[in-house]
Amino acid sequence: MSSCLISQAEVQSFIERCMMAVGTQPHHAHSLAEVLVEGDHRGHYSHGLNRMDMYVKDIQSGICAKDGEPVVKKETAATALVDGKNLLGPVVGNFCMNLAIKKAEDVGIGWVVAHGSNHYGIAGYYAMQALKKNLIGMAFTNTSPLVVPTRGKECTLGTNPISVAAPANDGDSFVLDMATSAVALGKIELHDRRKDPIPEGWGCDPQGKLTTDPKKVVNGGGLVPIGGNEETGGYKGYGLGMMVEVFCGILAGAQYSKHIRTWKVTDRVANLADPNLPVLTAGDPERMNMKKCEEMGGIPYHINVVNFMNDCAKNVGVSKLLPCDRLVSN
Amino acid sequence: MSSCLISQAEVQSFIERCMMAVGTQPHHAHSLAEVLVEGDHRGHYSHGLNRMDMYVKDIQSGICAKDGEPVVKKETAATALVDGKNLLGPVVGNFCMNLAIKKAEDVGIGWVVAHGSNHYGIAGYYAMQALKKNLIGMAFTNTSPLVVPTRGKECTLGTNPISVAAPANDGDSFVLDMATSAVALGKIELHDRRKDPIPEGWGCDPQGKLTTDPKKVVNGGGLVPIGGNEETGGYKGYGLGMMVEVFCGILAGAQYSKHIRTWKVTDRVANLADPNLPVLTAGDPERMNMKKCEEMGGIPYHINVVNFMNDCAKNVGVSKLLPCDRLVSN
Repeated sequence: MSSCLISQAEVQSFIERCMMAVGTQPHHAHSLAEVLVEGDHRGHYSHGLNRMDMYVKDIQSGICAKDGEPVVKKETAATALVDGKNLLGPVVGNFCMNLAIKKAEDVGIGWVVAHGSNHYGIAGYYAMQALKKNLIGMAFTNTSPLVVPTRGKECTLGTNPISVAAPANDGDSFVLDMATSAVALGKIELHDRRKDPIPEGWGCDPQGKLTTDPKKVVNGGGLVPIGGNEETGGYKGYGLGMMVEVFCGILAGAQYSKHIRTWKVTDRVANLADPNLPVLTAGDPERMNMKKCEEMGGIPYHINVVNFMNDCAKNVGVSKLLPCDRLVSN
Repeated sequence: MSSCLISQAEVQSFIERCMMAVGTQPHHAHSLAEVLVEGDHRGHYSHGLNRMDMYVKDIQSGICAKDGEPVVKKETAATALVDGKNLLGPVVGNFCMNLAIKKAEDVGIGWVVAHGSNHYGIAGYYAMQALKKNLIGMAFTNTSPLVVPTRGKECTLGTNPISVAAPANDGDSFVLDMATSAVALGKIELHDRRKDPIPEGWGCDPQGKLTTDPKKVVNGGGLVPIGGNEETGGYKGYGLGMMVEVFCGILAGAQYSKHIRTWKVTDRVANLADPNLPVLTAGDPERMNMKKCEEMGGIPYHINVVNFMNDCAKNVGVSKLLPCDRLVSN
């Protein structure tokens, strides 16, 4: 593959001039260009120059606002809620991160959430802003639904990235910047184009089953959360994806996966991959266990555990566990 | 399987009396018992009564301190560093969480780290304390090394759990409480005892390769991070595990995986699963890309991308990307 080498300064300037040509304010264009150049520079081309035309179109069509600045709607010494006024994502992202850094410098930590924002490029860009002040930075964003939750068959979660940047000695740093899906959709599309199978654990078919056929993922299936299927811990990635929805969608009063609220209502049954395996939310399995305990009137322990514990009690000279009056089977 | 049903109150009292019998202060024994009962109640038996003898031994052997209280070493309005004085984990955990909640009520968020702590049961217990105040709770802890990082073959990370609890309507809540390993070691030991194979993606052999033989995992191999191997995104789980080390070990001035600091030194090579695939830390792949860009003197873009972008530029009436003076192959 032959590539064309372009200086960062030129890519920066190119994006600025394209964005300004469609009416973006110069300092907003500058913010966007910085994030996209950083994306390319770090090797994440999917979040760099390659995305510029989308931002151009968003401005041209009026989907993103050209004018105005983000506004703080509510704040405490360490937190804030920001209305991004539908400006370009990097404009809102920078505003929030700068505010969080200022708060962290004042009171030790800052946590800022925003609604009215848009595509903001790589999450790592924002987390890394904190490094300049020798602070740990975190950035999260929810995104359009592309991920099928464990046991589900409909895309209801975004790829919802998590980024954490921590300064280290001698200018070194730890920079985690990961989607909570197993892989990006682009990787699956690439395999589809090449007619190559995908590894087990990247995506599922329209029935919610893991598949190695990229076409099924692209046509009505979806990405799976990091961890793959239920057996290999996909519910952990699903939980992390929902955590990001909580932080970025619900906490911010912003948009969030349109189906979250209906997951537990009855019309959801039609959307289950397997009706015997209902879609669960983090905390649900424990809630079911607690309900079972309450129904039974206690916590069931295997008799061997009880015996072992009573030996412990004897060793330290205290009375046994109260003799249980019944055995249960489970 | 037949089980013995015991009331929560009795399990609570049993743990308290065993712990007090070996000299634990009553309110410390109470704290420990509460966390362990909650573990069982939520169905996480691996973190409940079953662990009591370990805590008893820790007190008997003097590994955990019987007397004293945790101390705040340093604080800001929203953060604190706590010295747990080597007390029982739940004593330190509760102290930190209560302090974090108080700070959150004062300034919007509280973030407390501790050194000098011990095993603290389920992370979710602490995160859930925040729910009582209608706050979002987070809890993390690093643990003894059991997890082999992507491309490595030595256990250098703990199972490092992440817990996030968020209040919802009508007493409902979202409670994420997950280890950053694909599964718990106990699950693999169980398969080993039953002589059942384990699913691909749970653990690796002493050479760092995924295996379905539980014996290899237990004897010199290790757990793998959530996501499994590199192809299916195990580096994401590895990154999350390191994030927890950063939060709980490094940030707190506490113990952390003894090998983190030596991962990049030359004697580490002997510990690679494949010398052509060096163990990386979150941020390393991007750093390598940036280095490559700097060596080349620019960012390489595929010629088609450049052409596409120049079409965009033309459409909006601005000048093209500066003609590159050379093509590079990559």
